[in-house]
Amino acid sequence: MTTEPTIAWRDGAVELIDQTRLPAELVSLRLTTVPGVIDAIQRLSVRGAPAIGVTGAYGVALAAAASDPRTDPAAFAAAVAALRSARPTAVNLARMVDRVAGAALAAAGDGAEAALAEAHRVRDEEREASRAMGERGADLVLDLVGRTPVRAMTICNTGALATVERGTALAVIQTLYERGVLAEAIAMETRPLLQGARLTAWELGRMGAPHRLAVDGAGPFLLARGAADVVLIGADRVAANGDTANKIGSYSLALGAARAEVPFLVVAPESTVDMATSGGDQIEIEDRGPAEVVAWGGVATAPPGTAAVNPAFDVTPVDLITALVTDRRVVRFDQGETLASASPQEL
Amino acid sequence: MTTEPTIAWRDGAVELIDQTRLPAELVSLRLTTVPGVIDAIQRLSVRGAPAIGVTGAYGVALAAAASDPRTDPAAFAAAVAALRSARPTAVNLARMVDRVAGAALAAAGDGAEAALAEAHRVRDEEREASRAMGERGADLVLDLVGRTPVRAMTICNTGALATVERGTALAVIQTLYERGVLAEAIAMETRPLLQGARLTAWELGRMGAPHRLAVDGAGPFLLARGAADVVLIGADRVAANGDTANKIGSYSLALGAARAEVPFLVVAPESTVDMATSGGDQIEIEDRGPAEVVAWGGVATAPPGTAAVNPAFDVTPVDLITALVTDRRVVRFDQGETLASASPQEL
Repeated sequence: MTTEPTIAWRDGAVELIDQTRLPAELVSLRLTTVPGVIDAIQRLSVRGAPAIGVTGAYGVALAAAASDPRTDPAAFAAAVAALRSARPTAVNLARMVDRVAGAALAAAGDGAEAALAEAHRVRDEEREASRAMGERGADLVLDLVGRTPVRAMTICNTGALATVERGTALAVIQTLYERGVLAEAIAMETRPLLQGARLTAWELGRMGAPHRLAVDGAGPFLLARGAADVVLIGADRVAANGDTANKIGSYSLALGAARAEVPFLVVAPESTVDMATSGGDQIEIEDRGPAEVVAWGGVATAPPGTAAVNPAFDVTPVDLITALVTDRRVVRFDQGETLASASPQEL
Repeated sequence: MTTEPTIAWRDGAVELIDQTRLPAELVSLRLTTVPGVIDAIQRLSVRGAPAIGVTGAYGVALAAAASDPRTDPAAFAAAVAALRSARPTAVNLARMVDRVAGAALAAAGDGAEAALAEAHRVRDEEREASRAMGERGADLVLDLVGRTPVRAMTICNTGALATVERGTALAVIQTLYERGVLAEAIAMETRPLLQGARLTAWELGRMGAPHRLAVDGAGPFLLARGAADVVLIGADRVAANGDTANKIGSYSLALGAARAEVPFLVVAPESTVDMATSGGDQIEIEDRGPAEVVAWGGVATAPPGTAAVNPAFDVTPVDLITALVTDRRVVRFDQGETLASASPQEL
């Protein structure tokens, strides 16, 4: 069972699904220039840290093809700098852009060829990380739940659209589905931007997995009434103590899962772990302003001028998290393991 | 400080705010016939059990004016039966219709006059109940919070639109505002039908109270970060043990309030208490189907054909509820009081 990658390199161009058009239309963007890549990132046609990183990596390959790093270093450096800052908060973008640019500059032969080869490696590593998270997470879910088939609840979009293939939390659900042990996925719609309704429901439909959508406020009660066996979320940042920042609404599901004694798993690449942040109270929460809250699809949902408080993500304390699943290990917080103590594990 | 009643009797007609037009437009409906009243109830122009009850009561007054209960009993009975079943699940509607019809039939003099007098009494009792809940609830909030000004969080619409004036949980917020001790109300938007965004934000604006809107998934995290001092909700039904059924999303706020050690208060008229239901697990939850979840304002939020699970309300277990405030008493669950033990109290 395969689904098409959401980002691909074809005939000298980056091709990716325009996420702003989903679920109404499936439109593929073909990007052949650095400004085109920057525009796609800034318009949120591509979102999700790994997906942005891979797109930026291919952007450097386009830059190196347009301006030879050795004969036109100033133009190449300017293009790299522009790509790097297309979304300043996306740390993964800067890291991948720098890595591919470094490979191009260090190449003994053709810089453009070296850049493209390195971008392919970035993409392959993301695919491999997703595969590893999916396998490891599915093993853990089956171990924790102890019976099949499994009903899994998730929030936001953590699938192929956010990576290249498979994803993080949604990779675990896809793996369960491929193993024939997924009864149903319940996707929370994820207000205000509805990534669950728009993107996750679309991805689950594309892979053929049985699924239902629910409003965010229903999550804890559905868990209380026994509607799911496990909750799986992604992560924007995991602090050194295991506290996890993720899309707003995640903490609410964690409270519901703890009360219902349902395992609550965070699935995220090792690069999400930030040992420099001691705990969740150190994480500053971005408020994205009222516009997203007071309207949807151009239709006002509140009286004109209504103020809103709109935290983009929340923090789930580690005592509510059963385990963290990364591409390299499982950290069983419920068994007293910590990020400092848990070693990488073979699959 | 007053706001106009949302339902009024003027010159032989029931006048009420058409809630389906809010917040885009403030449209007053003038209903002069029984079919007009039934249509307004069925189209949800008026919603909220007390508001429906008062509207139905005035509907009987219109019926008695059109068909004299003594000289044309068959026509009067038919009109009463039609009003009674305009919304079969609204137990308050049947009760109030029967009460006013009984008064008309028992009247020694003019049946129509007696019906109108009884309908006015129904309205006056609802107003008095709202006032009592507001005063009692505000006293309790100030006692529990122990400092002013107070920041209050609420969900759904429990204001004048759901009653006649003031409301239940929102009556407490209005009373705090009138006493000059409300810093801010945070209204949860209340997906899927957005009663918080459409109606509560409108009511708070109309009364001039400072307020902000938030998506439902943000509630527990806002409480964790200290954004509110108290959570106030209404109730569809309170079971004998205190477990409370209310709009979906309420349970999530209760979990967040308990974790943050913020008081969580249910405010509802005594008629909401159902001693025949032993506990929350006895309450069947209506699923309202996918249509409300997969679109908003005619704009699809999910791929065509997406299934949804859409529980209309949830149940908050009594151990998460600090107290119940009714028009007649306060029941302090946090102090071991029960519905059977707590006596009516003078204001």
